Amino acid sequence: MSGSLVIVGLGPGSSDLLTPAAASALHAATDLVGYDRYLDRIPEIIVGQRRHASGNRVETDRARHALTLAAEGRKVAVVSGGDPGVFAMAAAVVEAIEAGDPAWRELDIHVEPGITAMLAAAAEVGAPLGADFCAISLSDNLKPWQTIERRLRAAAEGDFVIALYNPASLARPHQLGRAFDLLRASKPPQTIVLFVRCAATTEARVVMTDLAKADAAVADMRTLVIIGASATRLISRKGQRPWVYTPRAEQQVVR
Amino acid sequence: MSGSLVIVGLGPGSSDLLTPAAASALHAATDLVGYDRYLDRIPEIIVGQRRHASGNRVETDRARHALTLAAEGRKVAVVSGGDPGVFAMAAAVVEAIEAGDPAWRELDIHVEPGITAMLAAAAEVGAPLGADFCAISLSDNLKPWQTIERRLRAAAEGDFVIALYNPASLARPHQLGRAFDLLRASKPPQTIVLFVRCAATTEARVVMTDLAKADAAVADMRTLVIIGASATRLISRKGQRPWVYTPRAEQQVVR
Repeated sequence: MSGSLVIVGLGPGSSDLLTPAAASALHAATDLVGYDRYLDRIPEIIVGQRRHASGNRVETDRARHALTLAAEGRKVAVVSGGDPGVFAMAAAVVEAIEAGDPAWRELDIHVEPGITAMLAAAAEVGAPLGADFCAISLSDNLKPWQTIERRLRAAAEGDFVIALYNPASLARPHQLGRAFDLLRASKPPQTIVLFVRCAATTEARVVMTDLAKADAAVADMRTLVIIGASATRLISRKGQRPWVYTPRAEQQVVR
Repeated sequence: MSGSLVIVGLGPGSSDLLTPAAASALHAATDLVGYDRYLDRIPEIIVGQRRHASGNRVETDRARHALTLAAEGRKVAVVSGGDPGVFAMAAAVVEAIEAGDPAWRELDIHVEPGITAMLAAAAEVGAPLGADFCAISLSDNLKPWQTIERRLRAAAEGDFVIALYNPASLARPHQLGRAFDLLRASKPPQTIVLFVRCAATTEARVVMTDLAKADAAVADMRTLVIIGASATRLISRKGQRPWVYTPRAEQQVVR
């Protein structure tokens, strides 16, 4: 019996943003492997399907466990929030393959993409990612803070819209404030800053402010932070939250 | 009768990557507005539903037309390839609102996210976007080439993985070669370059090479180009295309 492994993107949370391809992959699996909070989102529908839940910060162990199960002939689905390729389980699985049993390289493995958080967050507010943008994880669990600062500086230098993943957690309460301070040195105070929590779910919450006033304490681990480019702007609406967008057309930037 | 407008992300093309929310939005519309090639993807299912097809390069006209129909009380779906917020129709619609009839600001409008091309392309090959990355459109129809060069330089400076949208078209055959030349000045020759055409469809085609050998002629308007960060690498597999990934863990970068 030959096993397989699929790394499935669950999207932002609501089932109507789970692709049919991802739903099929979950149905076809004999074993679901994932962070307990993500597994809890999947209804128990298949009798005999096994669930292997683990904590948030053990991606490498989880990836090895999933590969071991697949090598034993199980049909494994590793579940990932958002898209598996964006600060999620796809890189963890390939890392485990590289460092692990050579037989793992011959396994039938594929990735099912999903709606990543910045797309859902952008959709809540208009089109803030309408021009060139970058995505940076603020977690320094796996990379030096100096690398994060270098990327923030480069993003400001290139006038990219910036999407910040993992802006804060209980273990890392200070990074976002440091990132705002760094950006204040080179971006105008009126630069638009958005905090979008639980985008595309019934709990969605949006805070719109600017870089001068942005308070890092607004963010938690379920928040995606978007920092505008110089052209990003608000379109006011009567009795509704303004639209935020970054125009496609850009003028020559004077350096 | 009160109209509405939804900007719907169709994803990369195959119906099993269209979210249920996007499919519902298409079903609920009285009028579908979009680039003819995207409208052709949607099966004719609803009797009486009107279709308004237009060419690829008339986004602003299309956005105004859609807003006019919504203001007349129609339930309009503007269709967009990939995700509407990434180099697609969401920014065009908000731009048209900003410049248009003040009554358009009061319309019921929302955005349905989709799987954008870089996520589908990444899923084809492993996890190339596994660390910090940026997305740049190489089209200079709406921004000066100098702005694009500034962003490419900043992306290299920050050691981001780079996803290039709109790398080439019949009207713009030279941009990608110029972008490669610019990046060759600051990134190592062995930097991984991926050309992914029609990702997540039956016509998907992948070319893996490096920056020294990358030939811009491989790309067309249906190709997404990914240029690795310094850590992006290949994992060889017997008889199969290698995996490509960017490790989550990064060492201190010596500047």
